[in-house]
Amino acid sequence: MTIIDGKATAAEIKKEIAREVERMVSAGGKQPHLAAVLIGHDGGSETYVRNKIIACEACGFRSSLIRFEDIVTEEELLACIDRLNRNADVDGFIVQLPLPAHIDKQRVIEAIDYRKDVDGFHPINVGRLAIGLPGFISATPKGILELMRRYGIATSGRKCVILGRSNIVGKPMAQLMMQKEYGDTTVTVCHSHSTDIKEECRRADILISAIGKPDFVTADMVKPGAVVIDVGTTRVPDATKKSGYRIAGDVKFDEVAPLCSFISPVPGGVGPMTICTLMLNTLAAAKHEYYD
Amino acid sequence: MTIIDGKATAAEIKKEIAREVERMVSAGGKQPHLAAVLIGHDGGSETYVRNKIIACEACGFRSSLIRFEDIVTEEELLACIDRLNRNADVDGFIVQLPLPAHIDKQRVIEAIDYRKDVDGFHPINVGRLAIGLPGFISATPKGILELMRRYGIATSGRKCVILGRSNIVGKPMAQLMMQKEYGDTTVTVCHSHSTDIKEECRRADILISAIGKPDFVTADMVKPGAVVIDVGTTRVPDATKKSGYRIAGDVKFDEVAPLCSFISPVPGGVGPMTICTLMLNTLAAAKHEYYD
Repeated sequence: MTIIDGKATAAEIKKEIAREVERMVSAGGKQPHLAAVLIGHDGGSETYVRNKIIACEACGFRSSLIRFEDIVTEEELLACIDRLNRNADVDGFIVQLPLPAHIDKQRVIEAIDYRKDVDGFHPINVGRLAIGLPGFISATPKGILELMRRYGIATSGRKCVILGRSNIVGKPMAQLMMQKEYGDTTVTVCHSHSTDIKEECRRADILISAIGKPDFVTADMVKPGAVVIDVGTTRVPDATKKSGYRIAGDVKFDEVAPLCSFISPVPGGVGPMTICTLMLNTLAAAKHEYYD
Repeated sequence: MTIIDGKATAAEIKKEIAREVERMVSAGGKQPHLAAVLIGHDGGSETYVRNKIIACEACGFRSSLIRFEDIVTEEELLACIDRLNRNADVDGFIVQLPLPAHIDKQRVIEAIDYRKDVDGFHPINVGRLAIGLPGFISATPKGILELMRRYGIATSGRKCVILGRSNIVGKPMAQLMMQKEYGDTTVTVCHSHSTDIKEECRRADILISAIGKPDFVTADMVKPGAVVIDVGTTRVPDATKKSGYRIAGDVKFDEVAPLCSFISPVPGGVGPMTICTLMLNTLAAAKHEYYD
């Protein structure tokens, strides 16, 4: 059984990116530039954005942070997006979610120039993924695929079961796992209304859980030799932690791990890859890999 | 066992559309207008386009046919698309596929204003389907969903197996069958590299076959009581037919039908619904149901 080390893999990828940026800059090119728009002072969002900026530094990117108080109007935010769209130095940018309730999230996402949409949330990027065209793919599913590829996990023809049908994990993950390139599995997507989740899981060669229910995946749901990828990140109260909580995955790790060929733990599995694939997307934006 | 009558359902829907158009026109609105661009003289394409124009008449739509010889340049075709995009009287239009080899299909699809893309092939419409937003959905999967809904077939929580991962049937069908509205099944997508297709099929409550292999789905692959939807349309040589061929589905109908609760035959099942859902999309375009 191999425990997938997302932290080490992410560190390795960031080094590869930094080397590539060095090469680009020494060849006279510009530094890739990621901008982040942060609204309000949500603790989780603050942490994510801070970690993204730290990752930019590790990769040799320029980064910009644009802050708004949570009373910002939709018009002000859209005007900011418009400036970022037109700023030729900014290769890609993100608007950190969640947004305050008075702002239309979908309108904001669609206002972002899809060629700078390094979160991969714009319908054009979502649609291009669905029809197998290159484009920005959202960070978590792309990171999972990259992890599996780097661990040499065979996928073609195998059965992959995905728990969860969210727009940012379950659904794009399904698209990637059924694509004709690396992936190429028989894909099953289960969700809250599925009647036979246990039986589906037991038949999976690759099980990817993204439903946010701690300890949901138990040993009796896992086929011996399976690959288990845990995308759960539920905050569970924990008095022993300074923050007062710990991050729990979906998988009952202690009993499931011994059955697996590969398993990604929480924390230290998928999590560290997410920011790292945002960096890969930013590099691709700077190099115009998908769009002119 | 109920044989799903796509022809009768399509006729009924066209009548409903015609009544709605009558209402719109008598309220002072304009007639919906579908334009079709046809390149060359491929027999299949000629037939499809002719049938689309006949359907427009049945629905009370205006229709326009723009013809090019197959030596048309990509620039000429793109200029035509640009004119149709800007023509306020045209609510929706299609460019009949396949295109000659010297024309970049994807470039053509993306040149169509997504608000007039009644075929639902533009990445924006594909992406909006994926994330559960309203938009134009390609005709075959939308037609299948409509057929199932009108026959009162229960879907929520059941297991749906889709054979085929094409961009115009398998993949959008999977999106529809996992959406939180009608659909809402546990979805499995199998394809040419799947290793265990028979076993997957045997577990399906709803089996949708879109792989184009006559007689592929046999009785031993079907669970008693299942719903079987046959999307196959393979031309098989047949000397007894005037055309020299017959259209064969993917399902060995005679042995599979007795096992089913519902089955859609070929011909007369999904086929007639395809043009009819193009009409529904055109009506939605004329009424600005999805876009301003």
